[in-house]
Amino acid sequence: MDHKGRQVRLQSVLANSHLDALLVTHLPNIRYLCGFTGSAGALLVCQNRTVFFTDGRYKEQARTEVQGARVNIARKPPLVAAAEWLKANGKKLGVEVLGIEDRHLTVADHSQLVNLLRPGIRIRNTPALVEQARMVKDSEEIRCLAAAAQLGSSLFDVAVKALGPGVRETDVAAELEYVARRKGAEGMSFETIVTSGARSALPHGRASTAKIPANGFVICDFGIILAGYCSDMTRTLHVGRLSSDAQRMYDAVGEAQEAAINRVSAGVRVDEVDRAARQVLGRSGLGKYFTHSTGHGVGLEIHEMPRVAAGQHEPLLAGMVITIEPGVYVPGVGGVRIEDMVLVTGDGCEVLTPTSKEIIKL
Amino acid sequence: MDHKGRQVRLQSVLANSHLDALLVTHLPNIRYLCGFTGSAGALLVCQNRTVFFTDGRYKEQARTEVQGARVNIARKPPLVAAAEWLKANGKKLGVEVLGIEDRHLTVADHSQLVNLLRPGIRIRNTPALVEQARMVKDSEEIRCLAAAAQLGSSLFDVAVKALGPGVRETDVAAELEYVARRKGAEGMSFETIVTSGARSALPHGRASTAKIPANGFVICDFGIILAGYCSDMTRTLHVGRLSSDAQRMYDAVGEAQEAAINRVSAGVRVDEVDRAARQVLGRSGLGKYFTHSTGHGVGLEIHEMPRVAAGQHEPLLAGMVITIEPGVYVPGVGGVRIEDMVLVTGDGCEVLTPTSKEIIKL
Repeated sequence: MDHKGRQVRLQSVLANSHLDALLVTHLPNIRYLCGFTGSAGALLVCQNRTVFFTDGRYKEQARTEVQGARVNIARKPPLVAAAEWLKANGKKLGVEVLGIEDRHLTVADHSQLVNLLRPGIRIRNTPALVEQARMVKDSEEIRCLAAAAQLGSSLFDVAVKALGPGVRETDVAAELEYVARRKGAEGMSFETIVTSGARSALPHGRASTAKIPANGFVICDFGIILAGYCSDMTRTLHVGRLSSDAQRMYDAVGEAQEAAINRVSAGVRVDEVDRAARQVLGRSGLGKYFTHSTGHGVGLEIHEMPRVAAGQHEPLLAGMVITIEPGVYVPGVGGVRIEDMVLVTGDGCEVLTPTSKEIIKL
Repeated sequence: MDHKGRQVRLQSVLANSHLDALLVTHLPNIRYLCGFTGSAGALLVCQNRTVFFTDGRYKEQARTEVQGARVNIARKPPLVAAAEWLKANGKKLGVEVLGIEDRHLTVADHSQLVNLLRPGIRIRNTPALVEQARMVKDSEEIRCLAAAAQLGSSLFDVAVKALGPGVRETDVAAELEYVARRKGAEGMSFETIVTSGARSALPHGRASTAKIPANGFVICDFGIILAGYCSDMTRTLHVGRLSSDAQRMYDAVGEAQEAAINRVSAGVRVDEVDRAARQVLGRSGLGKYFTHSTGHGVGLEIHEMPRVAAGQHEPLLAGMVITIEPGVYVPGVGGVRIEDMVLVTGDGCEVLTPTSKEIIKL
């Protein structure tokens, strides 16, 4: 990965924002900028120098992984170590204004930082500078995301084989997660969702020990992590006789998803994509059951910018990877959701999730 | 679970701390207080009323799960919904000083809260009030933790069967996690650690695609979640001929762990427990390779208070559940860690992890 290039681009953003340095504390941002994958660290990006702070547990790992930054192994928490280092070296490096990630730093850590740095260094909240950069994926990231989507997609067949009336939802998740690991996934990108029957009306229900009933929808929403990058996909199956109402519900979600995908292209605003899905469901009289947004960016984290939602005006850019996942949830009855990962291109998009969207009836 | 009782006890702590209400935003704290297990929520605990805020995705789930609190389904983020509700009802309820969880609330959310509430309601940072309460487990929680430890422990045999030279670390993790799911675990409580050979010297290395070598230590550190409660255990095995140095290393860690466990009792300070382990390793000349603390509380989260570490003066209380997990890590050579969950009692402790600590040689 081009860690050095990412740091250089961030340094130029900092200069334009009148920031002398940025203290990066959000771990996925740290990984993006320097490659460190551990769970304790702080990255200080100054105009002419980048220093990474971690503790003794990560000494060997940091030396192997960290690119483009000096590694500082401290006996104190990384945030404190970074602050003390800055206190000692800030003047020499001309750091008067330090940006912090206010969407991630806690109030308690902020107070500690203020106490350690004053007087001399002012702290300024910054918008999601690194997250902004992360929205557009470079070619290496796109390869990683496509590979993750491909591996994730291959697991759907595993779920289908495992599924059937009387099988516990968790057992389906178990099979799927087992094969994910065997195929090299580092883990799941979020808690696997397998919801069946009336439970499929819970948009964020997880796999439970409930048994799949003889009749109804089964939503499988899952993702894996491969080389640090997340996949995310949803398919909905149907067990037992498919009523015409259920078929209409499935078809409407399928059409809504297709309409949203067809709207995706560089330059289009995310709310327009959301509206495309919402209009289809509205016309089918199911609009009120579509209770979440249409999608989200995906990358090192399962939920990244941009949000593909009403009221969001972010324009899509070539190289963004987003999910398109409309759904309808009829309380007490059931739900349908269909989700792909798509790569935004200059003249449309490329669907990264190869799994068919024909309804599977079991 | 006694959610209502927990709220009542918190209300009395609030009164003693001159707080009219506490805005709880840390999800495990919310679960502890009202039972909600979803991923978006805010719980407002006032002196005479508790209100839970979530969004439309969790409408059904909140109504099923939430105990002792009115459920408010909002179109806005839960934090904003809670602030607006408080703005409208705070005067009536006599809320002038609102506590926030400064170790969890982000700087950005804090700014938003201040803007929404002023003038009229002052915000005060509070120490970890709910976490303090969560340190001592009630009998139902202890049953959950013992059951989690038991299930976790049964998985070690699965790992042993899967292990051997040439097997990938991730494949061992896959088998273990698969059986965990099949046995009813909701998930793993942290990323499974299987580190072999020189990699076992990485105290927080995860299972990688590296193959287990013909000779060396293999550390298995893993935990499951059962009914929301986490287990955590570590055993170290040895593959190939065990040198006398390796045997000494294993024995020293075993002795250190035993010494620490023997020190655990209500009234003893956590640093004394840490010192008991450190002294044994110091006498064996391995003290400098013991680079982390001796343990931590465990419950709804994998890492809870108290930290069992040097410099911490918290006294142990009956009902606390902590890990005891000394380890030594010789860079380039390998590492050993042995970890149990123990329940603090009035006159000692009860080890919740039933697995033997005899070294297993493969």
